[in-house]
Amino acid sequence: MFLDHVPSQKDIVEAHKRIAGQIHRTPIFTSASIDAMLGCALFFKCENLQKVGAFKFRGASNAVLSLGKDELGNGVCTHSSGNHAAALALAAKMKKIPSYIVMPHTAPDIKKKAVAGYGATIHYCEPTLEAREAAVEEVIRETGATFIHPYDNDAIIAGQATAAKEIFEDMGGLDCLITPVGGGGLLSGSSLSAGYFSPKTSVIAAEPAGADDAFRSLRDGVIYPSVNPRSICDGLLTSLSERTFGIIREHVSEILTVGERSIIEAMRMIWERMKIVVEPSGAITLAAVLENREKFSARKIALILSGGNVDLDRLPW
Amino acid sequence: MFLDHVPSQKDIVEAHKRIAGQIHRTPIFTSASIDAMLGCALFFKCENLQKVGAFKFRGASNAVLSLGKDELGNGVCTHSSGNHAAALALAAKMKKIPSYIVMPHTAPDIKKKAVAGYGATIHYCEPTLEAREAAVEEVIRETGATFIHPYDNDAIIAGQATAAKEIFEDMGGLDCLITPVGGGGLLSGSSLSAGYFSPKTSVIAAEPAGADDAFRSLRDGVIYPSVNPRSICDGLLTSLSERTFGIIREHVSEILTVGERSIIEAMRMIWERMKIVVEPSGAITLAAVLENREKFSARKIALILSGGNVDLDRLPW
Repeated sequence: MFLDHVPSQKDIVEAHKRIAGQIHRTPIFTSASIDAMLGCALFFKCENLQKVGAFKFRGASNAVLSLGKDELGNGVCTHSSGNHAAALALAAKMKKIPSYIVMPHTAPDIKKKAVAGYGATIHYCEPTLEAREAAVEEVIRETGATFIHPYDNDAIIAGQATAAKEIFEDMGGLDCLITPVGGGGLLSGSSLSAGYFSPKTSVIAAEPAGADDAFRSLRDGVIYPSVNPRSICDGLLTSLSERTFGIIREHVSEILTVGERSIIEAMRMIWERMKIVVEPSGAITLAAVLENREKFSARKIALILSGGNVDLDRLPW
Repeated sequence: MFLDHVPSQKDIVEAHKRIAGQIHRTPIFTSASIDAMLGCALFFKCENLQKVGAFKFRGASNAVLSLGKDELGNGVCTHSSGNHAAALALAAKMKKIPSYIVMPHTAPDIKKKAVAGYGATIHYCEPTLEAREAAVEEVIRETGATFIHPYDNDAIIAGQATAAKEIFEDMGGLDCLITPVGGGGLLSGSSLSAGYFSPKTSVIAAEPAGADDAFRSLRDGVIYPSVNPRSICDGLLTSLSERTFGIIREHVSEILTVGERSIIEAMRMIWERMKIVVEPSGAITLAAVLENREKFSARKIALILSGGNVDLDRLPW
């Protein structure tokens, strides 16, 4: 079942019920030392501790569990820079259906290994949107698999929205929620959840300055594709879609661009102080606070640590 | 109050009540992928997520909160390779009393910084037991501070015992519990807790093969001092004391020695699969399982991940 409207409150509640049995309800961590350093109260939603090490498993689970009986047989297919690929592969494996994943050959090794480990059939391609889409079309032609886009899909958006829903269930009084933005699945879902479940909480996105297509898109009211993005955040290099942009325009207060040095500093701070492994694309939410201390001073802020899949042989310090 | 007998069940229960308000009740994590790889059920007690990043905060809190009124004024003093130092400094700070820490100048930078950050006065010394003890005596002469030994102290042992007590409260049916062994505070406390709260669970220790003094001591029934230990496990280089050895002889089933390569492999496995930062001295518990797969096959095993303080500029891979 793919919705062709904006996911409603009921859609998100139902998505959460649908996937509750197979996702982790991830913990919210705090750090007294980081709070003291930054002068605000931070609540880290640990989606790095989610299955496959990323929030993407929420959306993928919802998409697979929403498939009709006639769609299940031929399996699912997607293209992804990594975490969505692993997530869809595991969700398919748990439902005992085949999965076909188109990945750029430049994806981090740890993500390639994870996808293969979940039993998916991998097709490698060049790291361009055109190459990905061509490869996916060929797979669909050959297998009849259902395409599950990593973010331009209402079932995916409703699934990603459940992370923010859990935050609002666990705690009230949040001034704002910061999420990363790549293709916009997590951001659009989170902003819908805020509107439905915590309307006083503003939703802010963090985006690498070297991949600031979403920032410019929101500013100018048109979707700019992500062209030659340069950032360590390998999960945030994709473009918005009409669907995610439509929701973001309506519900997101602001997109903050963040420099690479702050992203690395934030990542290291989380590893050192909180003893958890977070990938650059997740640490960018803390980096946005580091770069805007006055703005966030004395505020109560939830940050989604979106993933923890890092190649330990290629750390940025 | 310092006990001069083996901590009783009541001592451990009271220690737990005494410190409950200021320690974290740390979570127990599991990993389906590591279980599948090793063919057993592992339960990781995350003391890397404890305050100061190590179980040592339990014992230090109990020792400080057990001081008499006449002892509080002059503060506390210790020598430590790192985690006990940070733990005592924080426990003293929370009780608003001074702390004096003697540290080898070779201790990891991250641990020196942590101790200084908690407001302790640091005295550096050469990395030998003799130099440490001489420096401590001088500090005590000058300040009148109460010496809190890192492990040869019943209040410390009773405090460290609370990690295992929490494990047994959270889950039954454990075949064994594996802890690291350095000076023996965590091991002796854990073995007492097993005897009191889960007598069917056997307690096994993991020790670096290059620092195997506890292994040889248990085998031969005499304490061998740790001479020129060589291991990446900077928390496990100290010698047993009469007090810890007495308890270990009575209550510990076995000490397994583990090679450096397995320790690094286990550490990396925990970072990659579980997305948490654990130091080599904590990862050694998983390394013991890696090196003894048949022995632990199909068993239900708790592992204490004792700490997460790692110098991120000096990772072993």
